[in-house]
Amino acid sequence: MTASQLTSSMFSTDAMQSVFGPAACVQRMLDVEAALARAEAACGVIPEAAVQPIAAHCNAQQIDLDALARAAGASGNLAIPLVKQLTQRVAQADADAAKYVHWGATSQDVIDTGMVLQLRDALDLIDADLDTLCDTLAKLAAAHRDTVMIGRTWMQHALPITFGLKAAEWLDGLLRHRQRLAALRSRALALQFGGAAGTLASLGNKGIDVAAALAADLALPLPAAPWHTQRDRFTEVATVLGMLTGSLGKIARDISLQMQTEVGELAEPSAPGRGGSSTMPHKRNPVGCAAVLTAAVRVPGLVATMLAGMVQEHERALGGWQAEWDTLPEIVELCAGALRQMRDVVGDLQVDVARMRANLEATHGLIMAEAVTLALGSAIGRMEAHHLVERACRTAVDSSRHLRDVLKQDRDVSARLGAQDIDRLLDPTGYTGAARAFVDRVLEQHLRRPAGDSYQE
Amino acid sequence: MTASQLTSSMFSTDAMQSVFGPAACVQRMLDVEAALARAEAACGVIPEAAVQPIAAHCNAQQIDLDALARAAGASGNLAIPLVKQLTQRVAQADADAAKYVHWGATSQDVIDTGMVLQLRDALDLIDADLDTLCDTLAKLAAAHRDTVMIGRTWMQHALPITFGLKAAEWLDGLLRHRQRLAALRSRALALQFGGAAGTLASLGNKGIDVAAALAADLALPLPAAPWHTQRDRFTEVATVLGMLTGSLGKIARDISLQMQTEVGELAEPSAPGRGGSSTMPHKRNPVGCAAVLTAAVRVPGLVATMLAGMVQEHERALGGWQAEWDTLPEIVELCAGALRQMRDVVGDLQVDVARMRANLEATHGLIMAEAVTLALGSAIGRMEAHHLVERACRTAVDSSRHLRDVLKQDRDVSARLGAQDIDRLLDPTGYTGAARAFVDRVLEQHLRRPAGDSYQE
Amino acid sequence: MTASQLTSSMFSTDAMQSVFGPAACVQRMLDVEAALARAEAACGVIPEAAVQPIAAHCNAQQIDLDALARAAGASGNLAIPLVKQLTQRVAQADADAAKYVHWGATSQDVIDTGMVLQLRDALDLIDADLDTLCDTLAKLAAAHRDTVMIGRTWMQHALPITFGLKAAEWLDGLLRHRQRLAALRSRALALQFGGAAGTLASLGNKGIDVAAALAADLALPLPAAPWHTQRDRFTEVATVLGMLTGSLGKIARDISLQMQTEVGELAEPSAPGRGGSSTMPHKRNPVGCAAVLTAAVRVPGLVATMLAGMVQEHERALGGWQAEWDTLPEIVELCAGALRQMRDVVGDLQVDVARMRANLEATHGLIMAEAVTLALGSAIGRMEAHHLVERACRTAVDSSRHLRDVLKQDRDVSARLGAQDIDRLLDPTGYTGAARAFVDRVLEQHLRRPAGDSYQE
Amino acid sequence: MTASQLTSSMFSTDAMQSVFGPAACVQRMLDVEAALARAEAACGVIPEAAVQPIAAHCNAQQIDLDALARAAGASGNLAIPLVKQLTQRVAQADADAAKYVHWGATSQDVIDTGMVLQLRDALDLIDADLDTLCDTLAKLAAAHRDTVMIGRTWMQHALPITFGLKAAEWLDGLLRHRQRLAALRSRALALQFGGAAGTLASLGNKGIDVAAALAADLALPLPAAPWHTQRDRFTEVATVLGMLTGSLGKIARDISLQMQTEVGELAEPSAPGRGGSSTMPHKRNPVGCAAVLTAAVRVPGLVATMLAGMVQEHERALGGWQAEWDTLPEIVELCAGALRQMRDVVGDLQVDVARMRANLEATHGLIMAEAVTLALGSAIGRMEAHHLVERACRTAVDSSRHLRDVLKQDRDVSARLGAQDIDRLLDPTGYTGAARAFVDRVLEQHLRRPAGDSYQE
Repeated sequence: MTASQLTSSMFSTDAMQSVFGPAACVQRMLDVEAALARAEAACGVIPEAAVQPIAAHCNAQQIDLDALARAAGASGNLAIPLVKQLTQRVAQADADAAKYVHWGATSQDVIDTGMVLQLRDALDLIDADLDTLCDTLAKLAAAHRDTVMIGRTWMQHALPITFGLKAAEWLDGLLRHRQRLAALRSRALALQFGGAAGTLASLGNKGIDVAAALAADLALPLPAAPWHTQRDRFTEVATVLGMLTGSLGKIARDISLQMQTEVGELAEPSAPGRGGSSTMPHKRNPVGCAAVLTAAVRVPGLVATMLAGMVQEHERALGGWQAEWDTLPEIVELCAGALRQMRDVVGDLQVDVARMRANLEATHGLIMAEAVTLALGSAIGRMEAHHLVERACRTAVDSSRHLRDVLKQDRDVSARLGAQDIDRLLDPTGYTGAARAFVDRVLEQHLRRPAGDSYQE
Repeated sequence: MTASQLTSSMFSTDAMQSVFGPAACVQRMLDVEAALARAEAACGVIPEAAVQPIAAHCNAQQIDLDALARAAGASGNLAIPLVKQLTQRVAQADADAAKYVHWGATSQDVIDTGMVLQLRDALDLIDADLDTLCDTLAKLAAAHRDTVMIGRTWMQHALPITFGLKAAEWLDGLLRHRQRLAALRSRALALQFGGAAGTLASLGNKGIDVAAALAADLALPLPAAPWHTQRDRFTEVATVLGMLTGSLGKIARDISLQMQTEVGELAEPSAPGRGGSSTMPHKRNPVGCAAVLTAAVRVPGLVATMLAGMVQEHERALGGWQAEWDTLPEIVELCAGALRQMRDVVGDLQVDVARMRANLEATHGLIMAEAVTLALGSAIGRMEAHHLVERACRTAVDSSRHLRDVLKQDRDVSARLGAQDIDRLLDPTGYTGAARAFVDRVLEQHLRRPAGDSYQE
Repeated sequence: MTASQLTSSMFSTDAMQSVFGPAACVQRMLDVEAALARAEAACGVIPEAAVQPIAAHCNAQQIDLDALARAAGASGNLAIPLVKQLTQRVAQADADAAKYVHWGATSQDVIDTGMVLQLRDALDLIDADLDTLCDTLAKLAAAHRDTVMIGRTWMQHALPITFGLKAAEWLDGLLRHRQRLAALRSRALALQFGGAAGTLASLGNKGIDVAAALAADLALPLPAAPWHTQRDRFTEVATVLGMLTGSLGKIARDISLQMQTEVGELAEPSAPGRGGSSTMPHKRNPVGCAAVLTAAVRVPGLVATMLAGMVQEHERALGGWQAEWDTLPEIVELCAGALRQMRDVVGDLQVDVARMRANLEATHGLIMAEAVTLALGSAIGRMEAHHLVERACRTAVDSSRHLRDVLKQDRDVSARLGAQDIDRLLDPTGYTGAARAFVDRVLEQHLRRPAGDSYQE
Repeated sequence: MTASQLTSSMFSTDAMQSVFGPAACVQRMLDVEAALARAEAACGVIPEAAVQPIAAHCNAQQIDLDALARAAGASGNLAIPLVKQLTQRVAQADADAAKYVHWGATSQDVIDTGMVLQLRDALDLIDADLDTLCDTLAKLAAAHRDTVMIGRTWMQHALPITFGLKAAEWLDGLLRHRQRLAALRSRALALQFGGAAGTLASLGNKGIDVAAALAADLALPLPAAPWHTQRDRFTEVATVLGMLTGSLGKIARDISLQMQTEVGELAEPSAPGRGGSSTMPHKRNPVGCAAVLTAAVRVPGLVATMLAGMVQEHERALGGWQAEWDTLPEIVELCAGALRQMRDVVGDLQVDVARMRANLEATHGLIMAEAVTLALGSAIGRMEAHHLVERACRTAVDSSRHLRDVLKQDRDVSARLGAQDIDRLLDPTGYTGAARAFVDRVLEQHLRRPAGDSYQE
């Protein structure tokens, strides 16, 4: 256990910790070794009799992880001591089979392909949580299609919007991430297999055949060539999850701002021991949002690491490749943790519609000045209308009165607009423009998405 | 002019500097204003008579850029003072039309859509250079399909590869970037149009109609909803160009390593005044590679900025959006500059095939030990073969002789392998495995790409 | 002009743009060339007669900057074409003197030392603004030593603090940055002078003498050795300014949060055309804070670039050095721009003490629960006190009453605490603990700082 | 165990893993709790009798770490469930004492101060390894003061230098890091103690007294004020270690370049199982350098995270603070791991002086052209000399002859320079300028450093 594991329940998920845990990491490499033996036997490269003894020992539970960790330092990677341990165990059962362990492969073949298998599992988990979050946001947007609230720009009240529009726009970004995640799989999740210098020379003229059989065994696409120092595949995973984390961070920023004591429009779901404070009974801490925002602070630097690491030397790199080992899993875990937190926060988000309505009145009608100006403008011209409304706003501010009252008492205004007109114009619910249409357009996009499948626009 | 412009010929291209120059930046915003007037007149929102006076003044040459720059500080963005200048000029020609300038739009609508138009131009330029580079690499890979050279791992000689394989793998990564660039256009290059709070409220019930007409006028897709604080569109451009820059950096790292005085396998094209030194006549500085590597050092941090900026507040953000303004063009220019440099470096790359061949002998045959072991192994078993070859290698190193000679004089070896066999086994050209097949597979992928068109796998 | 210059009034200062502008950049390099001629003549390396003709032409106004920019691409840096232009101009006046231009120096000597001279100017400007900001914050802290406001944790109301404490803590961080800025000068601002490979070989045995004379002429410390590929000096400037920007970002975040419509405790200074909106009269946009936050988003990635660039090759690097050229000035300008914005924001910050007082009541007394518990605890034990107060808080929330009223009507409480006690305990001004002492301690540190001078702890 | 622990022997040290391991992390927080009880009892805030029961249970071995980890998620930090466990254990022994656990402190007080204690240990370890590395480099520089080798710029042969100079410059950067590390301690390693909102209000008028006693107990400086959201202290640690890692990366880059098969000037210490390859007997992989370079790729992005996290909200932040928890220890461990690797690499670095000498001849004398030009110039003028030497160089290259031979056969040259002069001028050992002086100056700086002690310039 590391200190970071003490807090990992905040920043990752149990399932994702399993995917990237030491046992799974080792098991996925061993899965590659077993598949390699099968593929090479099928192609006549190694004896068929070697397959079973090798495959039977490709079991992480038989591996001494502590010894592995100790040996990794001198070897410079994990595959060398793992293959050594595996070979020893196979040899105890079948000395001949042991000669064919890891035949023709290089350490990076096994480490990269093992990581591909881990990423495949990880992306499945992420897709599932993202689906749930999207569905929840779609319901939220639909339910609050007509819930009027203040729109805020520059962190100041601007004009009315609907909470449905806000939720729909949160969703809108996530739908594009779903596209990106679907599209990257065929690029990112490819077999790595090239042997010591990327030519599979030790397999003679059987290299491509073995590669194809290995890819088929692992249900991975066979790439055109090895990609030992072409790292765009893994980096794309990092960037797409980096963007997803950024979009989640945006939602968390909004929710935490709306949870502020003075705003009070939203609240994270409450639960015993969650976000409360015994000495400060009024507090409802946004612990879920805090975890998401933490991920959004951490991930950009980690993505930069992946990009910086792409500049790799020759056929096998010095530093750039090794920099991926911890960085990519960290990105995936942070993204998955943030996604889970947001799924749960939005899943039972407390929406205070009354407070949203009340906050619209915080400026005593000033947010509706534009609506009045537009209405007045059609009668008396835009410039004159602008002048009258500006004067009324100044009066309202100086005298701490509601703009509605000032307008009604303004002779120039009331000559054109009746009290009912003014009431109507000052009603924020009547000034939400295309909000409903935008919500519907986003929901339509959400529905168009083929369930559980990749799709293109 | 800024100091960075003094060196911009290294790190950008003239065409790209035009795309992102102040005049183009302003013109693209004005293009949006003109299109907006047309769209709104077509939808009956503003009078048809206002269109011509507005459109006629949407010309960057009429704008006082210095005044614009001075005013931007207090306004907080460029659109406010630009609209002010535009309105004044329109008013001089037609006071009535001037009322309808920028009608219903918000600053960010104009700034973001202007940037989209700039990015469209930029991506066209990048696609063209990338096409050329890919074609050149394809030719290089084909031409050197059988040029044997040493493969290097850990920056040490490993086993033979071909220079064709190396070039094919450089190409392989770029082909995936072409896919990504094709796929992101429909996501990234979308109209931004939402008005002050993203509802287009001031357009009454005409919001969507105007948005659709505006999108059509600018030949941009109409997005489901405004994306003022959903910044994945622009961030995707940043990440894909970031990855492309990384891949170019990898090529530059390889070439600069192969250009080292002691290695001498490659050289950048020479030209008068390029990369030479009057006091050091032997130098052939990799100035193109240096520029590419510079971009590869700079872009990751800039991409991190884009990702960090995604966490934006409410309907219009404080800091995150503004952080994009310079960062995204910097990424695009650095990527385009690196691409141009690499296009030119590879376009006339000097390949010293003889030196490649000579360098294969640097270890006096030790790189062929694996080939000998495999051949011997089929006769005497792998363990025994390994033992014999290891002994021969040690002897070769200790006595500074060529492994070939040692093997021929080794009685245990020469009992199984004749002198001709040994010569053949020690010949690196016979040990390149699937290199040729990998080259062909990559070239096939390159050909499959529809010319001048986007494509999907 | 670049597009980024259109908005540079937001993100830099005029003075700083001058320091890093092309003319200053070239002039500082020419200052080095002139000083070099003087130093070498003084040491007998070049003829005394060469000095005046060289020095007289070391004037940026005589340099054709456009030609310089065009030539930089092929040369790979700015010094080569600059020396060429300078030499040509000197040659027109004195052919013999022209032979001694740039004698024994390498491009990087001139570029790095020129940058050191620019940085010295830049740090002077930053120190001045930082001094002013610190003084202003000190006055603010002193003036509001007893202005009670709500302390917020997790973006939720927590317990009372004073605005003086908040301002003092803003100041506290800046005082440490002053220390760091003072300490880095002697490390960062050193002469760079090593010649083509860092040995000054072409100066024979006069290398160190010339270096010492050159350092003295430029009033720079003479370092132990050249530092062409030891880049910690410049990177330290980047990191310290990066931290300063982060601290300014923290202040901007706080101010912008306190400027929210619902909070209204602070406002940026108002000015015509600054932060207002004609259609939204109620808005007071935090344009200064936005600029600071923009810098805080951008600078971390740029600092990462400087750190990543430190891994440089041999005696002169490929990419890492060139990556500094634009990045370091960007960091300095962004930091200086943020500092100026914050200096101006804080310089006339509008503090709404009444609103701070009013916001303390937003939870109807719940924020004072801890104070009541502590008081009650001394009488009836902490556990019992906790229990009673918790019950009262729940009642207050459920019945929407003020905690004061609930407590007064609670028989168990009123048995121990009189109405006056309760009033006193519910008064936030009585529960600010060591806030005053902390303010005084920070102000004391501020005063201890030697005025206008560097200092060590 | 996490997957990253499997490879941690490459990237960290055992000692550092202990410092930041879960047990140490918890123990350091408990150390703060124990010290707090003592300080509060000494100040009369809590009963003296509570001290022993509390302090006796401040033992990480008594803490259920798994339960802690499970509870951390809902709490949002580690201190809340830790205090709960501690309180329960104390209560079992002494119910009354249990009431005084964590009295008046807030979670962040304990977490931050615990981290300060961990950092103090970590910096001690780093100082020790850095001392050793500096001493080793000093010896290396002294030993190779006159070992001539080629200086390389742009990754091309430039002019002769000495290996002593190279080592001295590696050392030079590290000496400045020592300064920085010494200077940051007093700033970075400060007590954190402010209570729930930073006022210590619950301690009444005893806040400062308790803080002072607590600081004294922990042997930490008492800061002017709490720094819950002023994060420059920890960020400075990150930046200085980030710079140190960059400098180490520079050394690793150089060594790995010099270890290339074609260069062969240096080699990492060999050891059984270290950096070798059974199938490629000629390989000597730079596994130590690879680990250092990995750290140098990873740390910049992590430092950016620390800087980005500085923008924190109000009195306790949402995301920025939490982002430090794993990031800062990662930076420290990566730096410490890189330092240990470099200490070991340099500690037994294999220097092939003969190969350095031989490589000087790779350009057949061209690297000495400058020396000849300078010598000839004093006789016939610099322009004429330049012309003659340039012609000779061209001839040498075209005819693949050594420049020495060409010069001797050139009548114009041999008229001025005898064969012995030419031999002398072509000897690289005679053209190392101030290299020796630079080495001595750096060594002098190294000696000036007070042994085992912090120091100021």
